[in-house]
Amino acid sequence: MSDSKVMNIAKKRGFLWSSFEIYSGAAGFFDYGPLGAILKNNIISKWRNYYIVGEGFYEIESPTIMPEEALKASGHVDNFTDPMTECKDCLEVYRADHIIEDTIGEDVEGLEDQRLTEIVSENQIRCPKCGGHLTHVWSYNLMFQTLIGAKGKAKGYLRPETAQGIFIPFKRLLRFFRGKLPFGVVQIGKAYRNEISPRQGVIRLREFTQAEAEIFVDPTEKKHPKFSKVANDDLKLLSADAQLNKQDPEIVKAAKAVEEGIVSSEVLTYQLCLAGRFLSDLGIPLEFIRFRQHLPTEMAHYAIDCWDVEVQTDRFGWIEIIGIADRTDFDLKSHSSHSSEDLSVFIEYDEPKKVKKLVVKPDMKKFGPLFKGDAPKVIKALEDLDASEVQKAFDNNENYKIEVDGKLIEISSDIVSFNEKEEIIRGEKVYPHVIEPSFGIDRIIYSVLLHSYTEDGDRTFLKLEKQIAPVGVNVFPLVNNDNLISIAHEISDELRNQGIISEYDGSGTIGRRYARSDEIGVPFAVTVDHETLENKTVTIRNRDNLEQIRIPVNEVYSALLGLLEGRIEFESLQQ
Amino acid sequence: MSDSKVMNIAKKRGFLWSSFEIYSGAAGFFDYGPLGAILKNNIISKWRNYYIVGEGFYEIESPTIMPEEALKASGHVDNFTDPMTECKDCLEVYRADHIIEDTIGEDVEGLEDQRLTEIVSENQIRCPKCGGHLTHVWSYNLMFQTLIGAKGKAKGYLRPETAQGIFIPFKRLLRFFRGKLPFGVVQIGKAYRNEISPRQGVIRLREFTQAEAEIFVDPTEKKHPKFSKVANDDLKLLSADAQLNKQDPEIVKAAKAVEEGIVSSEVLTYQLCLAGRFLSDLGIPLEFIRFRQHLPTEMAHYAIDCWDVEVQTDRFGWIEIIGIADRTDFDLKSHSSHSSEDLSVFIEYDEPKKVKKLVVKPDMKKFGPLFKGDAPKVIKALEDLDASEVQKAFDNNENYKIEVDGKLIEISSDIVSFNEKEEIIRGEKVYPHVIEPSFGIDRIIYSVLLHSYTEDGDRTFLKLEKQIAPVGVNVFPLVNNDNLISIAHEISDELRNQGIISEYDGSGTIGRRYARSDEIGVPFAVTVDHETLENKTVTIRNRDNLEQIRIPVNEVYSALLGLLEGRIEFESLQQ
Repeated sequence: MSDSKVMNIAKKRGFLWSSFEIYSGAAGFFDYGPLGAILKNNIISKWRNYYIVGEGFYEIESPTIMPEEALKASGHVDNFTDPMTECKDCLEVYRADHIIEDTIGEDVEGLEDQRLTEIVSENQIRCPKCGGHLTHVWSYNLMFQTLIGAKGKAKGYLRPETAQGIFIPFKRLLRFFRGKLPFGVVQIGKAYRNEISPRQGVIRLREFTQAEAEIFVDPTEKKHPKFSKVANDDLKLLSADAQLNKQDPEIVKAAKAVEEGIVSSEVLTYQLCLAGRFLSDLGIPLEFIRFRQHLPTEMAHYAIDCWDVEVQTDRFGWIEIIGIADRTDFDLKSHSSHSSEDLSVFIEYDEPKKVKKLVVKPDMKKFGPLFKGDAPKVIKALEDLDASEVQKAFDNNENYKIEVDGKLIEISSDIVSFNEKEEIIRGEKVYPHVIEPSFGIDRIIYSVLLHSYTEDGDRTFLKLEKQIAPVGVNVFPLVNNDNLISIAHEISDELRNQGIISEYDGSGTIGRRYARSDEIGVPFAVTVDHETLENKTVTIRNRDNLEQIRIPVNEVYSALLGLLEGRIEFESLQQ
Repeated sequence: MSDSKVMNIAKKRGFLWSSFEIYSGAAGFFDYGPLGAILKNNIISKWRNYYIVGEGFYEIESPTIMPEEALKASGHVDNFTDPMTECKDCLEVYRADHIIEDTIGEDVEGLEDQRLTEIVSENQIRCPKCGGHLTHVWSYNLMFQTLIGAKGKAKGYLRPETAQGIFIPFKRLLRFFRGKLPFGVVQIGKAYRNEISPRQGVIRLREFTQAEAEIFVDPTEKKHPKFSKVANDDLKLLSADAQLNKQDPEIVKAAKAVEEGIVSSEVLTYQLCLAGRFLSDLGIPLEFIRFRQHLPTEMAHYAIDCWDVEVQTDRFGWIEIIGIADRTDFDLKSHSSHSSEDLSVFIEYDEPKKVKKLVVKPDMKKFGPLFKGDAPKVIKALEDLDASEVQKAFDNNENYKIEVDGKLIEISSDIVSFNEKEEIIRGEKVYPHVIEPSFGIDRIIYSVLLHSYTEDGDRTFLKLEKQIAPVGVNVFPLVNNDNLISIAHEISDELRNQGIISEYDGSGTIGRRYARSDEIGVPFAVTVDHETLENKTVTIRNRDNLEQIRIPVNEVYSALLGLLEGRIEFESLQQ
C-alpha cells in the first residue's frame, strides 16, 4: 500500500480528484471521476446485496436538508461540535484537541473546552504556523447551516448523518412493517460535516457518502435468529479493556465474543461479522482489518456498546471506516419527547398475562344519599383510579380527594371497600433499541484502492476484485491493422451489450496498453491478432497472473461474464 | 389519473410522504418510503441502462456544495432568481409572476421586476390572503446559501443543477476521453432550489434529484452517427411557432423534424427520441407526453434550441419533467474566462490545411546599421507579428511601432518588404457545444405513479411496468394452515435469493391480500393452496388481467424471472 502512488493514479486516470481545481479548490471536497463513480456504484450495489437482498432490510431516502427542530431533538444542534482555537496573530484556526495531541502527544478526547484551554496554557502551546498566542478553546458546531424559505427565518442544517432521516418517520415505517419488530431500514446518501481544517484528502471530507442501517429490535430480545450462520467467523477484536491494558487485538470466534461478553449482544456481533465479510468481499485483506471497541470516554452517553471497524493505511495509520453501535432507545425517545408523537411500539406477549389489580368498590347504599345525582359520575371516577393511591390515603388516616366535574369530592374509608380483580394484559409499549452499522463509503473506496495497489517486479497494478473493478475488460488489436481494429471494436461493443463495461484501446504499443489496463485494475484483456483472422480465436489475459488463454470469439462473451461474476475459474478455460 | 387517489396510496403504503411530519413538516421536502425508494432506484437503473450502457456515456459525482466563485461563473449567483413580493400587512411572501398570472390570467414570464411592480399596481393586485398591499417586486436568489469552513468567510451554495459539476472538471474529463469529441458525461444526484412558497407537493421540491447528461460535441458537427436508429420515431411536437399561433401539437417523424428545421439539429432530435423512448419504457402512455419548444422569451439567452418534455396531469396540467437543450459553448467559455483555465479542445482537421500567410521580411542590409545589437530581437519580434497590421499602418502612411525590450521601435516601409508564406495547420482550438438532456427524477416518479393508477370496475391497481415495480411478487398461503404458510415462506425466500423483491403476506382474507397487492402494483401473486400439498403446483396470478395459471413449484422461479424481465409472456405459460 502506498497512499501517494495510489492517489496519483486515482487523479491521473479518473478515479478521484479534488473538486473545483480550476477555482483553486475547496478543502474537504472530492469529485468521483468516470472510473471512481463506477467503482462507487459497484460497491454500493454490493452493499445493497448484503443488507437489502441478504438481510431483507428496506431502503428509504430522506432529505439532506433538515429543519432545526429535528436536529435539536437528535442532540446535534447542541453537541455536534469540535473544540476550536484561533491564533490571535495570524488568525489561522485549529482543532484544539489535534494541536494539543500533536504537541504533547496526549489523547485529550472528551475533555471540556475549559480544560483544553488550561492545557494549552500550561504547556505554552502556540500557533504551529506563526508561533502566535492561541485563543480560549470554544465549541464549534460542525453542521453546515442554511435558511429555508424566502423569509429566511427557518434555520436548517445539512444532515450530519443519514440515520436521523430514518428515526423521524418511524411511525410510518412501523406501519409499513405492520407494527412488528425486528425490522431494518437503510439509507445511502450524502452527509456533511463542516470540518475546521480538513487536510487529510479523501479521509476527512466535508461532504461524504454514508450507508447506514438502523435495525429496530425488541430491547429484551437481542439474540439473532441467523447467528449460527456467523458463529464461527473470526473477528480480530481490540476491546476497550485491551486498549486500556495496552494489549494487542485478539482473534476471537463470533460465538465466543458473545459468550465471554466481549461484545454486548448477538445482534451487535452479527453486524460485526457481516461488516467483516463485506470488506473481505471487497478485496481488503483480513490482516489489515480490526474491530476496535470504543473506550468508555469516547462512547456516546446513550450507547451500550460501539465498535469501529478500522483499516490499516500507510499515511493515516488505522482509520475508522465503519461504526457499529447499539444506540439503545435514545433516538426514538428523544424524538418522541421533542415532537410529542409517540414513537413506541406495542409488543404483544407470547402469552397474554393475567395480573391482579386492586380496585375500589363503592358502598352503593351510602353513595346514593351522599352524592345524589352525581353518584354515577363519582363511581365512574373511582373505577379509573389507581386504587393503591386511595389505600395510601386511608393508611395515613386521610380522606381521598377526587375531582369530578370540577368539584373536589372527599372519599372516606367508611363508604368504600377494596377488591382484587384479575386483568388480562396482551402486551406493552416499549421503545425499540437500535442497532446501527454505519458505513463511510468514501473511506471504504479509499481503502479498497489502497489495498489493491500491487507491485510485482516492474509491473504495478490494482488488484481490484473482479466484481467491483470499474472496467471489466479491455479489448486490443495486436497491431493497428484495419481488420483487427474492426473485430476488436465489434467484440468491445458486444461485451457492452451484454452489460460488461468494456473499453477498446488502440493507441500506443500492446505493452503500453497492458500497462494502462493494469494501472486501473481491468481484470481481463482480450487481444485480437492475426490468428483471429485465420481461426476466429482471441486471447484473454488474466491481470493477476499474466496467464493467457486462447478461445473462440463466440465463446468469449459467456466466458468473460462467468469470469467477472466469479462463476468460472480462469484456469478452467485452459484447453 | 387522479392525483388525490394516487398520493393517498403513496402516503399510506410507503411510496412517498412529506418529510418531518412529526415536526409539523417543512414545505418542499419529501421522503421516499420503502416502496418509493425501490421504485426510484429501479427508474435510475433504467436511466443508466439507456445513457451509460446504451450511449456509452460515463458517470461522475461531484459535491452538492459549491463555492461561490464557480456559481458566479455559471451565472447562478446573479441570475438564478424569481420575482418576489411581500404583503405589507400580513408579511406573507409570494412569487410576483404567479400572483399576477392567477389574478389577471396573463403570462408575464421574463418581464423585469420594475414592469411586474407596475402591473401589480395598475391592476390593483392585493394579497390573496388578507387583501393587504404588496411591496415592490424584487429578485430573490433561489440558491440555498451556507458558509464553508470554520472562519465562515467562504460563501458556498447548494448546487442548483448537477450540470455545473461536469463543466468544472472538463479538462480532466477531456483527458479521460483522450482529447476526442464527442463524449458524454452524466451525473445523477441532488439539486436544490429554495422555492419561495412551494405548494405543489412533489412537483415543486426544494430538494430534488436530477439525472443530467452533458454531451460535448464539435460545434461544426451536429449530425448524430446513430440517427438512423431513431429517424422513424414519432414525436408529438409543440413548436414555438405553433404556440405563438395557438396551434395544437403535431406528430412528426424525427427525420422530418430535422429536415424541416423544427428541431435545430440531429444531435438534439436524437435526444428527444431517446427521452421519449425512456418514458414510454417506464409505462407512461405516449398520448400523455408532448415535446414543447421554449418560446424565444423563455429560452436562456445562450441556448440555440430548448425543448421540454411534458406530461399531462389532472392536478397541475402539463408539467415539464425533462428539459433538452443545446447550451452551445456558453458554460465552458464562461468557466474558462472566470477561472483563466483554457477549457477548449484542439480539434484536428481530417486533412491538414495549407494556408497562405503574409509575413514581414526585414531588409537585412538596413537592419544591421539601424538597430545594431538589437537587430536579432527586432527581427524575431517581426516574425511573430500579424503582418496585415503592418501593411495597414503603411497604407495609412504611418510607421509601424513595435515594442522590443520595453523600447518602442519604429519600422518604416523602406526597411521591410512583404512575402507570402505557406503554413500547414493541423487543427484548431474550439469550445465544444453542449447538448443537455436534464431529467427531473421526482417528477418522473410522480408521472409514473399517476399514469399507472387504474380503475377496473371495483378493482383499483397500479399498472406499474414489471421491470420497475418495487415488489415483483407477493406470495400467499390460500388459508392459514401451517404447511401452506411454511411453503409460501420458502418460495418467497427463494425468490429473494434469486434477486426478486418478494413479500410474504398471510394476514386477512385472500381477497384483501390481492387488493393490497394490486394497490402497490405487484405484477404477480403466487398462491399456495391444498393442491400444492398434493401435486407440488402453485398458481400465479397476473395483476393486469387477473388470469391465473398453475405451474409446478420448481418452475416458478425461472418463470417469474422471465416474466419480470419481459422475456416470457404470461400467456405462454398456460398449459
